[in-house]
Amino acid sequence: MEFSLGQIAEMLGGKVEGDATLKVSRLDKIQEGQEGGISFLANEKYSSHLYETQATAVIINEGFEPSKKHSTNLIRVKDAYAAFTQLLEAYDSFKKSEVSGVEEPSFMHESSKIGNRNYRGAFSYIGKNCKIGNNVKIHPQAYIGDNVTIGDNCIIYSGARIMSDSVIGNRCHIHPGAIIGSDGFGFAPLADGTYKDIPQIGNVILEDNVSIGANSTIDCATMGSTIIKSGTKIDNLVQVAHNVEIGENTVVAAQAGISGSSKLGKNCILAGKAGIVGHLTIADQTTVGANTGITKSISKPGQTFLGYMGMEIKAYLKSYALFKKLDAMDSRIKELEKKS
Amino acid sequence: MEFSLGQIAEMLGGKVEGDATLKVSRLDKIQEGQEGGISFLANEKYSSHLYETQATAVIINEGFEPSKKHSTNLIRVKDAYAAFTQLLEAYDSFKKSEVSGVEEPSFMHESSKIGNRNYRGAFSYIGKNCKIGNNVKIHPQAYIGDNVTIGDNCIIYSGARIMSDSVIGNRCHIHPGAIIGSDGFGFAPLADGTYKDIPQIGNVILEDNVSIGANSTIDCATMGSTIIKSGTKIDNLVQVAHNVEIGENTVVAAQAGISGSSKLGKNCILAGKAGIVGHLTIADQTTVGANTGITKSISKPGQTFLGYMGMEIKAYLKSYALFKKLDAMDSRIKELEKKS
Amino acid sequence: MEFSLGQIAEMLGGKVEGDATLKVSRLDKIQEGQEGGISFLANEKYSSHLYETQATAVIINEGFEPSKKHSTNLIRVKDAYAAFTQLLEAYDSFKKSEVSGVEEPSFMHESSKIGNRNYRGAFSYIGKNCKIGNNVKIHPQAYIGDNVTIGDNCIIYSGARIMSDSVIGNRCHIHPGAIIGSDGFGFAPLADGTYKDIPQIGNVILEDNVSIGANSTIDCATMGSTIIKSGTKIDNLVQVAHNVEIGENTVVAAQAGISGSSKLGKNCILAGKAGIVGHLTIADQTTVGANTGITKSISKPGQTFLGYMGMEIKAYLKSYALFKKLDAMDSRIKELEKKS
Repeated sequence: MEFSLGQIAEMLGGKVEGDATLKVSRLDKIQEGQEGGISFLANEKYSSHLYETQATAVIINEGFEPSKKHSTNLIRVKDAYAAFTQLLEAYDSFKKSEVSGVEEPSFMHESSKIGNRNYRGAFSYIGKNCKIGNNVKIHPQAYIGDNVTIGDNCIIYSGARIMSDSVIGNRCHIHPGAIIGSDGFGFAPLADGTYKDIPQIGNVILEDNVSIGANSTIDCATMGSTIIKSGTKIDNLVQVAHNVEIGENTVVAAQAGISGSSKLGKNCILAGKAGIVGHLTIADQTTVGANTGITKSISKPGQTFLGYMGMEIKAYLKSYALFKKLDAMDSRIKELEKKS
Repeated sequence: MEFSLGQIAEMLGGKVEGDATLKVSRLDKIQEGQEGGISFLANEKYSSHLYETQATAVIINEGFEPSKKHSTNLIRVKDAYAAFTQLLEAYDSFKKSEVSGVEEPSFMHESSKIGNRNYRGAFSYIGKNCKIGNNVKIHPQAYIGDNVTIGDNCIIYSGARIMSDSVIGNRCHIHPGAIIGSDGFGFAPLADGTYKDIPQIGNVILEDNVSIGANSTIDCATMGSTIIKSGTKIDNLVQVAHNVEIGENTVVAAQAGISGSSKLGKNCILAGKAGIVGHLTIADQTTVGANTGITKSISKPGQTFLGYMGMEIKAYLKSYALFKKLDAMDSRIKELEKKS
Repeated sequence: MEFSLGQIAEMLGGKVEGDATLKVSRLDKIQEGQEGGISFLANEKYSSHLYETQATAVIINEGFEPSKKHSTNLIRVKDAYAAFTQLLEAYDSFKKSEVSGVEEPSFMHESSKIGNRNYRGAFSYIGKNCKIGNNVKIHPQAYIGDNVTIGDNCIIYSGARIMSDSVIGNRCHIHPGAIIGSDGFGFAPLADGTYKDIPQIGNVILEDNVSIGANSTIDCATMGSTIIKSGTKIDNLVQVAHNVEIGENTVVAAQAGISGSSKLGKNCILAGKAGIVGHLTIADQTTVGANTGITKSISKPGQTFLGYMGMEIKAYLKSYALFKKLDAMDSRIKELEKKS
C-alpha cells in the first residue's frame, strides 16, 4: 500500500509543503523516520527531531514555524496528533481487511456455512455445522471445530483454535495460538489414588468486541458456558478456567490466571500474572496488582489489591514498608530487651 | 447425535413420564435448560428449577413428587445423579470417538506405522519411523515428529505437537497447542559473555493415562528422558523443564512450572502458578499452594506449603497473620520505647 | 544415522578396544546405556557404571584401567569428556540439518524469495514479500506472515509463527508454538467504560543468535520495534510486551514476563516467572530471582533481586528471615509489654 503525500493531505484535510507526488508506505516514529515513511510532530518539545528525521514527510500543526532547516516534506493540518491517529487507524484497518478469498488447500466441512467478504487462509480448518458471519478473516492454519458460531467482522489469527460448540460474537479478535474451548481441568480422585476424567461438555461464549491474546487458553465449561462479556480484552498467555464468567470491559494482562467457576465483575483490571482462586465473586471495578493472588470474594467495588494473598493496597503497602525494615524492628526489640 | 426419551430411559433403566418419542441432543444444567436438552434433578433443594426449566426432559429420582405443575417430560430412575453421570460419560465418550478415517490433505511419512480405528485430521503431520497404536485420534493440524511412539486410545488435539523421539503411553490426552519434547533450555556461558547451545538430545516419556493441558510445554531431556508417570494430569500453560521426573497421579494446575532435573513424587498437588526450582526432590503427597515457590527439597511426605519461598502452611499462615498486623506491631514497639 | 565404532574412533582421534565394526545410532547416559548406544566415562568416581552398562560402547580416557570385567567396547581417547561433547555436537548438528527440500502441500506466495539449502515442511506458510536466507529450516505447520525478513541458518520449528513485518537475524531458533510479532496489548479507555483498539503497527526485530522458547509470545511494537539483541536466549511461555528492548546475551527463563516499553540491559538473568513492570530501565548484569517482580528502574549494574516487589537480595533475605520468625518477635513484644 503506497500513497502520495497529495492523497494523504486530501484525506486529512491538510496542505503539502514540499513535493506532493512523493509516496510513502509506512508510518514511522519521527526519531526513527526513514525514506518512504511518514511521521508526525504534535508537541513542540520534540521539534528537534524534525530537523534530523529521514522520514519522507512529517504531519505538523498549521501554525508551527520551523526554527531550522529540514530535509523532509510537511503536511500541515489543524491537529497533527488527531490527523496522525486518523492515518494510523486507516492504515491498521486497511491491513486487517486486505486479505480475502480462499487460499488452497484449506478445509471446510460441507455442512458449515460462511457469509461474504471472508478470508480462509491456507491450511485453515472448519469442522461440521459451523455458522460464520460476514467479513470474518480466518488466517492460515487457524482451527474451528464443530458447531461453532462466529458473528461478523471477526479476525481469527494464524494458529488460533476455536474448539467445538464455541459461540463467538461480533468484532472479536482471536490472536495467534489462542485456544478457545479447551477441556476444563476436571478429575475426580478415586480410592486407589488415581484420577478419573470428569467429562467437560460445556462451551465458551465470547460476546462482542472481545479480544483474546496470543497463546491464551479459555477452557470450556464442565456443563453450561464459560462466558466472557462484551468489550473484555485479554492479553497473552492468560488462563481462564472452566465455568468462569468475566463481566463487560474487563482488562486482563499477560500471564494472569482465573481459576474455575470464579465470576469477575465489569470494568475490572487484572495486572500481569495476577491470579484469582476458584469459586470467587469479584466486584465491579476491582483492580488486582501484578502477581497478586486473590483468595477471597470481593463485594465492595472499586478497590485495589496487592500481595501474595491480596490485601487492600494501603494496608499492603503499610505492612510491606515495615517488612523492609524488619531488621531495624528486630534491633529495636533487642534494645528494649536489654533495658528491661 | 440425537436420542429419543424412550431410548435414553431404556439405557438408564428408567421410565418416561411424558412423550417418549421426543428427541434430545444436548445435556443442560436444569436452570439453563432449553428445548432439545435433557437435565437432571437429584437434590430436592433445587426442585424449584423443575417448574421453570425449558429442558425437553429431566431425569429424576423414582420417588420424587412434583409439588407444582411443570412443562417438561420426566425420566424416572433409581438414582438421578448416577444416571445423569452415566449419560454424561456416554455422551463424552461418543463425542471423542466420533471422528475417524483420514481427512485430506494430511501427511504421514511412508516409514511410519499406524494401527486401526484411528483418525488423522486434515493438515496433521506424522514424520519418519513413528509407531502409533489403535484408536488414536490425531486431530487437524497436530504434529508428530520422527521416531515417535504412541500407544492405544490416545487423543492428540488440534495443534498439539509431539516432537521427535517422544514416547507416549496408552490413553493419553494431549490438548490443543501443547508441546511435548521441545528443546530444553541449556546454554553454556562463554568467556566473552555469549552463550553456546548445549545440545538437547534426550526425549520425553509420558506413561499411561497422562493428560497434558492446552499450550503447556514439556521439554525433552538434555540426555536421557523427561518422564511423566502414569495417571498424572497437567493443566494449561504449565512448563516442565528438561530431565524433570513427575511421579504417578500427580496433579499440576495451570501456569505452574517445574525447573530442570527436579523429581516430584506421586500423588502431589501443585496449585496454579506454583513453581519448583531446579534439581530438587519433592516427597510424595506434597501439596504446593497457588503461586508458591519451592526452593528446597522436601523429604517428608504429605506436607502443604505456601508463600514466595515455600513455608510449611501453618508456619506461613502464622507469619502472614502477623505481617498483616506489622503496623500495629510497630506501634506497640513505639509505645514500649516511649515507656522505656 | 548409524556409525561404526571404527568411524567414531577415527573422528575422535581414538582407538577401539573391542569390535570396531559394531554400529551405534544413539548417545546414552552410561547408567541407562542400551544396545546401539554409545556412552562416556570421564570421572572415575562413576566407574562402577562401566561394569554394568548395556551400551554398545563407552568412550574413556586413554589411561583408564578397568578394575573388573565389562561387556562393552571401549573407545580410548585423550579426554573422554571433550570427545563426548564433540560427538554430541556433531550428532545435534546432523539432526538439525538433516531435513531439506520442500514437502507438499506447503504454501509460499510467489512474491517471496528464499535462498539455498532450505527446508519447507508440509503445511508451512510463507506470505507476501518475504526474504529468507540460506539454510533456513521451516518446519511443518510453521507460519511466516508478509514482509518478513529472515537471515541465514535459522530454525523455525513446527507451529512457530512469525507475524508480518518481523525481522529475524542469523542463527535464530524459534521453538514450536512461539509467536513473534503478535499485536501489542493496547486499548484506550473511552468515557462510556468501553475500550478502543490502539493500532499496533510496529514490528519485532530479533538480532543474531537469538532463541525464543516454545509457546512464548513476543509482541510487536505499537510503532517502531520490539527489539531482542544478539545472543539473547528466551525460554518457554515467556511474555515480551510491545516496545520492549532486551540487550545482548540476556537469559530469560520460563514463564517470565516483561511489560510494555521496558528496556533490559545486556547479560541480565531473569529466573523463572520473574516479572518486570512497564516503562522501566534495567541495568546490565542484573539478576532477577524466580517469581520476583521488579517495580522500579535499576541503574546500578550487577545486582540481584528477590521478592514480590524486588528487593536487593541481602536486604530481602534479612527481612525474610525475620518474617519467618514474626511469631517469636510477637512473643518477645508481649513479654516486654508484660514487664513494662
